[in-house]
Amino acid sequence: MIRHTVVFRLRHEPGSPAEADFLRTARARLEGIPGVARFEVLCQTGSQSGYRHSLSMEFASADACTAYNVHPDHTAFVRDRWIPEVEEFLELDFEPYAEPGA
Amino acid sequence: MIRHTVVFRLRHEPGSPAEADFLRTARARLEGIPGVARFEVLCQTGSQSGYRHSLSMEFASADACTAYNVHPDHTAFVRDRWIPEVEEFLELDFEPYAEPGA
Repeated sequence: MIRHTVVFRLRHEPGSPAEADFLRTARARLEGIPGVARFEVLCQTGSQSGYRHSLSMEFASADACTAYNVHPDHTAFVRDRWIPEVEEFLELDFEPYAEPGA
Repeated sequence: MIRHTVVFRLRHEPGSPAEADFLRTARARLEGIPGVARFEVLCQTGSQSGYRHSLSMEFASADACTAYNVHPDHTAFVRDRWIPEVEEFLELDFEPYAEPGA
């Protein structure tokens, strides 16, 4: 399992229609891409970071994650919405930790 | 639901016994604290960040998360292991995004 996540801050005013449209569109365009499971749109509520939202999804394999990254629906979303509307972001990918020898 | 997470880089050599001991002890000391659900020890595998591990857990409410933070098993772990062994970290807390009017 690979959990592919990104935390980010939009250029839009918090609570604005533009913010809601971005988050709604992210789900509409990305959740249905083959291989995507457990797609989540999240608010980052911790006070130790300025990131305000996150997208999180899971893939069964690294190949499935790569296929998502190059899928035309994903690359179009990045080009048309992500790059113009996201001010700052951090990508984090996770896999379960397996203790050595376990 | 609050997903309380931290991504971090240990002072220990990657793959070292000290690293394994830290991660094993984190689970042993923290997973059983009341209110903790879906406790995960994760490797951060994305190339865009130098963080190498993550702990993730879920709470039913902000009060449950606060109770965890002040629980003596948590504060002892922070004092005895986290502060001396963690080089850099970022806390991120998440809640499901609810579209305005939804």
